Amino acid sequence: MQPISSPQNPQIKLLKSLEDKKGRREAGLFLAEGHAMLERALDQGWQPKHLVATKRVDLWDDLQPLLVTEKVMSTLSSHNNPQDVLASFPMKFQPHPAKSGVWLALEEIRDPGNLGTIIRTADAAGAAGIILVGECCDPYSPECIRATTGSIFGVPLVKMNDDGFLNFLRAFPGPTIGTVMGAKHDYRSEIPETAMIILGTESKGLSQAVTSACSKLVRIPMKAGVESLNVATAAALLLYQAVGT
Amino acid sequence: MQPISSPQNPQIKLLKSLEDKKGRREAGLFLAEGHAMLERALDQGWQPKHLVATKRVDLWDDLQPLLVTEKVMSTLSSHNNPQDVLASFPMKFQPHPAKSGVWLALEEIRDPGNLGTIIRTADAAGAAGIILVGECCDPYSPECIRATTGSIFGVPLVKMNDDGFLNFLRAFPGPTIGTVMGAKHDYRSEIPETAMIILGTESKGLSQAVTSACSKLVRIPMKAGVESLNVATAAALLLYQAVGT
Repeated sequence: MQPISSPQNPQIKLLKSLEDKKGRREAGLFLAEGHAMLERALDQGWQPKHLVATKRVDLWDDLQPLLVTEKVMSTLSSHNNPQDVLASFPMKFQPHPAKSGVWLALEEIRDPGNLGTIIRTADAAGAAGIILVGECCDPYSPECIRATTGSIFGVPLVKMNDDGFLNFLRAFPGPTIGTVMGAKHDYRSEIPETAMIILGTESKGLSQAVTSACSKLVRIPMKAGVESLNVATAAALLLYQAVGT
Repeated sequence: MQPISSPQNPQIKLLKSLEDKKGRREAGLFLAEGHAMLERALDQGWQPKHLVATKRVDLWDDLQPLLVTEKVMSTLSSHNNPQDVLASFPMKFQPHPAKSGVWLALEEIRDPGNLGTIIRTADAAGAAGIILVGECCDPYSPECIRATTGSIFGVPLVKMNDDGFLNFLRAFPGPTIGTVMGAKHDYRSEIPETAMIILGTESKGLSQAVTSACSKLVRIPMKAGVESLNVATAAALLLYQAVGT
């Protein structure tokens, strides 16, 4: 069978639409590229909706790829050097976080590269999952997916609005640890197996409402003259303090 | 005096050329934008070569800005929302690292966003400085400078070629700690006040030559199935293990 060479092919057009948030929302799908990432998806039990490749691939037993030309692949890819395989998957948000394990809550995170890096670190550290609070950037954007290097398939994600999160925070069975500049406690103290770590946006930090609802506030010490750390850096320090596998 | 409105003005053309590595190398200068960043430069005793603004600014006592129109400012800025002030500074590499304090050596780091984030973390953690080993990306590129959020002015930088670094490593008075997947030791053990932490590229890790020359190899534990961390994440964990102010 000839590979698909037309970008006007309806399946190719659908996949191309997943570049944008609107397209992803309408289709309920996102794209992941490359063998390493798809192997992680397979390991974690994800099933693609579409599998597209420039040559035969052995990933999912029951699923042969739609073959496309390299040119079509490059129109779908977000990489400068397109991979030879990509797939679409249904976007998955869990309805609510489990009440055990170490959870990381991010208030209004806006940068998809930072979010992807945090998902990658949460996966490596063995966190229970990530709660996206309020108006966050889309974890299923190509930039975020790329920064996760496959960890998008390994970390449960939950979306909550501000009120829902505050209610959940108050009922959470472990300590709820907000990270705030100038807090009394150093972050380097023991964190129990069930805990929630909460980080605010880089520009504004944690909201007042969430700060007040935390059971403990911690700071990351910084040399005088330095104002803040990158949010993905702060997340890494807290997550490895709490879990670190 | 009328603000400069022509992008053909020779000073504006020179400043514009600093966007590119070639222009920076020829002029020996780099650009930093915005009040917060320039205040850090001032605090750290840096003196600009050019100071350009859309209105009067009070930063360096003896230096009044060259006034430019907002349009000219937007051609110079690497931000989507240009700041109202920017300055050029001489690029500064120290001839060699001090033989005390906690140093971070980066082998062939390629992503300027990662490098900038690492410089920011090294500053916050109070590291002695960063050694750029081999073919690294340019710490004075606009993307890196932006990611440092001003810490480019707070962290000594040294460039070394592979052989020079290996010689320095062998003569360094403290432990030289390489971060390697699968190393025997967990990174979370005490690191003395004089030490060198060494990280490789994300794609290839540490080179064999450097790995062999390290006095200790450590790993960052990761959940099964996860292959690596972002290099800036790894740097943050090691730096805060070693220093953390």
